[in-house]
Amino acid sequence: MSNIVRFGVSLERDLLEKFDSLIESRNYTNRSEAIRDLIREELVKKEWVEGDEVAGAITLVYDHHKRELLNKIIEIQHDFQNVIISTQHIHLDHRNCLELIAVRGNPAQVKRLADKLKSIKGVKHGTLSMTTTGKDL
Amino acid sequence: MSNIVRFGVSLERDLLEKFDSLIESRNYTNRSEAIRDLIREELVKKEWVEGDEVAGAITLVYDHHKRELLNKIIEIQHDFQNVIISTQHIHLDHRNCLELIAVRGNPAQVKRLADKLKSIKGVKHGTLSMTTTGKDL
Amino acid sequence: MSNIVRFGVSLERDLLEKFDSLIESRNYTNRSEAIRDLIREELVKKEWVEGDEVAGAITLVYDHHKRELLNKIIEIQHDFQNVIISTQHIHLDHRNCLELIAVRGNPAQVKRLADKLKSIKGVKHGTLSMTTTGKDL
Amino acid sequence: MSNIVRFGVSLERDLLEKFDSLIESRNYTNRSEAIRDLIREELVKKEWVEGDEVAGAITLVYDHHKRELLNKIIEIQHDFQNVIISTQHIHLDHRNCLELIAVRGNPAQVKRLADKLKSIKGVKHGTLSMTTTGKDL
Repeated sequence: MSNIVRFGVSLERDLLEKFDSLIESRNYTNRSEAIRDLIREELVKKEWVEGDEVAGAITLVYDHHKRELLNKIIEIQHDFQNVIISTQHIHLDHRNCLELIAVRGNPAQVKRLADKLKSIKGVKHGTLSMTTTGKDL
Repeated sequence: MSNIVRFGVSLERDLLEKFDSLIESRNYTNRSEAIRDLIREELVKKEWVEGDEVAGAITLVYDHHKRELLNKIIEIQHDFQNVIISTQHIHLDHRNCLELIAVRGNPAQVKRLADKLKSIKGVKHGTLSMTTTGKDL
Repeated sequence: MSNIVRFGVSLERDLLEKFDSLIESRNYTNRSEAIRDLIREELVKKEWVEGDEVAGAITLVYDHHKRELLNKIIEIQHDFQNVIISTQHIHLDHRNCLELIAVRGNPAQVKRLADKLKSIKGVKHGTLSMTTTGKDL
Repeated sequence: MSNIVRFGVSLERDLLEKFDSLIESRNYTNRSEAIRDLIREELVKKEWVEGDEVAGAITLVYDHHKRELLNKIIEIQHDFQNVIISTQHIHLDHRNCLELIAVRGNPAQVKRLADKLKSIKGVKHGTLSMTTTGKDL
């Protein structure tokens, strides 16, 4: 059961009107939720620089016809099994696959895993989504 | 069967040495693959600005105890079923969930979906990974 | 004379404690100022996508020994004199110059100017800082 | 006199065609220059993480009517005079100023300076452009 506190924010009326219009366009129904999201965004960035444990998603797009590609992807994932939770595989077309790898662990190790996977020959594009385990956020 | 072409790049020796050392640290085994990745990175950015069809992943971290949260997440996903391929759900701890949603479609629509999901009260953090369907890349 | 308004934000105690510690590390003396900055950051991003007039800075690092480089840089700047306010030139060492160009105007035009300058042969690196004219922010 | 070397890059014809069209839209006249810029972009990012000396620009937009603001900005700049090269000041309108501060030095120190300036009450927006001294790039 979380412990809700309340504090006041003062700002210029013009600024507040612009903010209200911005958050409405992003589907927020109240200011508190929009501000909580801005705050959490900053805290998640900090976790990735200074924290011990983060969560994230690595995406890979690759042509599964490339020789040895699947083996290399699997092999590297096994080397990092302590940070990989699970993998989702989508057949985009006859040749191209999209793989979403859910990860959790030390930020430096997660980044190293993403770098290793992205540099494999045949992997066309890779991304690393930096999110959080949600503890205390 | 792709059609491989070759072209020459000229640059300063100092710059090339620094590049070689950079790509080695990122696990590349040859310069061509590293340069292809830099090129594809730019093309994917362009697809998200000007293209018709992209692929991606939305991540959400949320506390599933929040009232009505799961229903809202499901409802919005159904409204966007034409861009959602599949979803992967991970129980991070007793309260927190990580959801990875594989998406494909029009870039503006995918961004709108991500905005809608991120602004739901109870969703602590959301990200959108912008990647590609891999066609011609 | 700006018109100050005040509103309340409610959030979890844990989240607030983390936020307080974050903003203290960034030298903020009160929460309102930190939250105003988060809000303005979002509004400035929006101005660069949808707005008519923005302000910014273009940086260029180049080797002034390169043949014809200075002439090309000057020529392009003259073509965009309606968005360039002024230029500051620093001699980094015997060969390298840092140029800071203060700009103001239509976001698309400012980006086009930055692209043109960055692509000149001999310009080693260029950046575009996206900021605001400050009106109503 | 720099020492130019040449190496070959092989890639798919489709990819090369897309790249050629991209760089043409960014005003590049040849592929080598476009690729050198992609390479230098990566090296500059690395300098800001691991390097000893970088160059950059801090922009500040502020309302000079705010009490004590100018004094605080000057005071902080003096504390960091070892990383500040020079400052350019633009009167955007009756109230708003744009200040461009050319900086050079240790990346962590430059970032700390930017954080300090951005957090001053009355500074509406601040940015840090991360560029390079150009040595060996």
